[in-house]
Amino acid sequence: MTSSLPTTGLQLRSLIKPDGTLELSLVDTPVAPPADDEVLVKIQATPINPSDIGLLLGAADIASVQVAGSASRPVVTARIPERAMPAMAARLGQSMPVGNEGAGVVIAAGASPAAQALLGQTVAVLGGAMYAQYRTLKVAMCLPLPTGTTPAEGASCFVNPLTALGMTETMRREGHTALVHTAAASNLGQMLNKICLADGIGLVNIVRKPEQEALLRGIGAQHVCNMASPTFLADLTEALVATGATIAFDATGGGTLAGQILACMEAAINRTAKEYSRYGSAVHKQVYLYGHLDTRPTEIIRSFGMAWGVGGWLLFPFLQKIGPAGAQALRQRVAAELKTTFASHYAKQVSLAGALSAEAISAYGARNTGSKYLIEPSKGL
Amino acid sequence: MTSSLPTTGLQLRSLIKPDGTLELSLVDTPVAPPADDEVLVKIQATPINPSDIGLLLGAADIASVQVAGSASRPVVTARIPERAMPAMAARLGQSMPVGNEGAGVVIAAGASPAAQALLGQTVAVLGGAMYAQYRTLKVAMCLPLPTGTTPAEGASCFVNPLTALGMTETMRREGHTALVHTAAASNLGQMLNKICLADGIGLVNIVRKPEQEALLRGIGAQHVCNMASPTFLADLTEALVATGATIAFDATGGGTLAGQILACMEAAINRTAKEYSRYGSAVHKQVYLYGHLDTRPTEIIRSFGMAWGVGGWLLFPFLQKIGPAGAQALRQRVAAELKTTFASHYAKQVSLAGALSAEAISAYGARNTGSKYLIEPSKGL
Repeated sequence: MTSSLPTTGLQLRSLIKPDGTLELSLVDTPVAPPADDEVLVKIQATPINPSDIGLLLGAADIASVQVAGSASRPVVTARIPERAMPAMAARLGQSMPVGNEGAGVVIAAGASPAAQALLGQTVAVLGGAMYAQYRTLKVAMCLPLPTGTTPAEGASCFVNPLTALGMTETMRREGHTALVHTAAASNLGQMLNKICLADGIGLVNIVRKPEQEALLRGIGAQHVCNMASPTFLADLTEALVATGATIAFDATGGGTLAGQILACMEAAINRTAKEYSRYGSAVHKQVYLYGHLDTRPTEIIRSFGMAWGVGGWLLFPFLQKIGPAGAQALRQRVAAELKTTFASHYAKQVSLAGALSAEAISAYGARNTGSKYLIEPSKGL
Repeated sequence: MTSSLPTTGLQLRSLIKPDGTLELSLVDTPVAPPADDEVLVKIQATPINPSDIGLLLGAADIASVQVAGSASRPVVTARIPERAMPAMAARLGQSMPVGNEGAGVVIAAGASPAAQALLGQTVAVLGGAMYAQYRTLKVAMCLPLPTGTTPAEGASCFVNPLTALGMTETMRREGHTALVHTAAASNLGQMLNKICLADGIGLVNIVRKPEQEALLRGIGAQHVCNMASPTFLADLTEALVATGATIAFDATGGGTLAGQILACMEAAINRTAKEYSRYGSAVHKQVYLYGHLDTRPTEIIRSFGMAWGVGGWLLFPFLQKIGPAGAQALRQRVAAELKTTFASHYAKQVSLAGALSAEAISAYGARNTGSKYLIEPSKGL
């Protein structure tokens, strides 16, 4: 370790006050010197994933955002609707760091050989608090990136790639043979298409816009259904007949979509039914909600018999369930295919302060497909 | 076999026509002579369970019921709302017999020793088409009733008792230690209370009326929450803290109740949480919808993290899952406790024709707790 290491660095913080105010700010935070099995990473790229936005913005009303402070130390405030405050109770008054994953250069390392081996390397990192200039982490949380990989290319190494692989893995483990994905033109959705093409898995993509349909067809997607089309439900049913998909992963979570998918699955299954069953088909149909892009309540019109389930799906419990060896196999595939299957695309790169501009918040806060931001904490404030 | 056996008998039929009309009638149907492993049962008592009403009335609008025909051969018509017709597609134009279970006397038997052994006995029977004067059935579908048991006492031997036992069994198999039940003052709910008291299982009962609360407390229920109370959600949360229940069986299916139960479970779990998790608790919370007493869409306000599931639950797939030995163990318990744990209560006894009166249909069609009807097909028409 050299003596020129930083002793403090900026960290983005999210605070919800008891009066219902969200406050985002950059806080000068001590940099912890690495312990024996730790490294100090200068964070160079860290994405704003939908899974980060929940912690970052809480249930704040984006339209109420106000930015004060200075250009390099902006202070954002926004209002949390009163009805959403009970769900915020557990984090009230806690100034919380944000950012699940990122990538950067190891600028200091602990005494252990594993830590020393990473010194000077570009690594992808996982573990929270990545919206910061510096982050001290255990060696186990670092994935050395292949030579020639930039931090921007490696910044989204974990959440999206492992989520996409987790979907096909869950499909297999729960006895299904094809799957449905919504908000399917997202970075995650594109990865999933590449995985399914490579692995010969039937995939039904649900999107909202013609250009998203074109994008997916352009990368080889065979089944793309546009929710905005008047023939959406018929199109979806045909795609379900063609693929036999009986499990879906829904990023939107709210509204009627999950129920519509179940109803179309049942209609597809009943194409081949021989007699009427009052309880519907006996084939289990499952929709996992893994995101909340649509924050309305989930509304399920139960018209598809009794063999169905809707539930939450989350990456980290899934990784725990499959165990360290299973998770490691998925990680190795990600590292090997980082510039192909698992390549990410960003709408914009911003600094830490830039991530707190009203314009940026309103863009990524809308959670629209194609509006993903990348924070570059080492770039000028 | 004697020569005085009936050659035809009345059978209640439900028909949905392509024009959206439901028609209920009594049809003179040939009585099949029993094969070697079969018996002919004169049906003396058969309940109208919620699980029968779906097939009997389809999605018909009860307010539109009209009764024509004669007193002994009534013909009921009612209107199916257009929006509900797609879900009826698979049964259009088919005149369907109704009635899951019942009890009666074996008046003829096939040549096999097992069949002959039942001759003259009072048996509980399962297998559909029980709303009829006679029913020919395989021996395996018959459960001989203990001496001194009337057909009315044995008529509800299968659906409710096995469903109640299936709930506690599902609870155990899925790793929960206590459970929640809605519409809890029903016959089924009372059975479940007796089971849970006997087996030392924590049970949270949800009801809608003070008299239902009193009824359950009268049979020893410890946790009864009234949905109509202004303190319902707080009461429910306290009962969940006290019992640790993380699985619920909901007979209503529609509206916001399933989501409210999940939210209160999460609040109960978080009483002991040590730090904020943006994804909610890691404890899996499950609600199974096993009925449709409330035909509105299921509306889930997702405020309880990601470790949750909502899905359909049905007796017959459950029995298949636990296998013949598991199912037989449950059946033996039912037979042994038929006059205690599994005693049923009926609002009214009616004949087959009486079941098709406007008054009866509007009473049982409302699916209210305490409005269960028992058909006695051998009584005067």
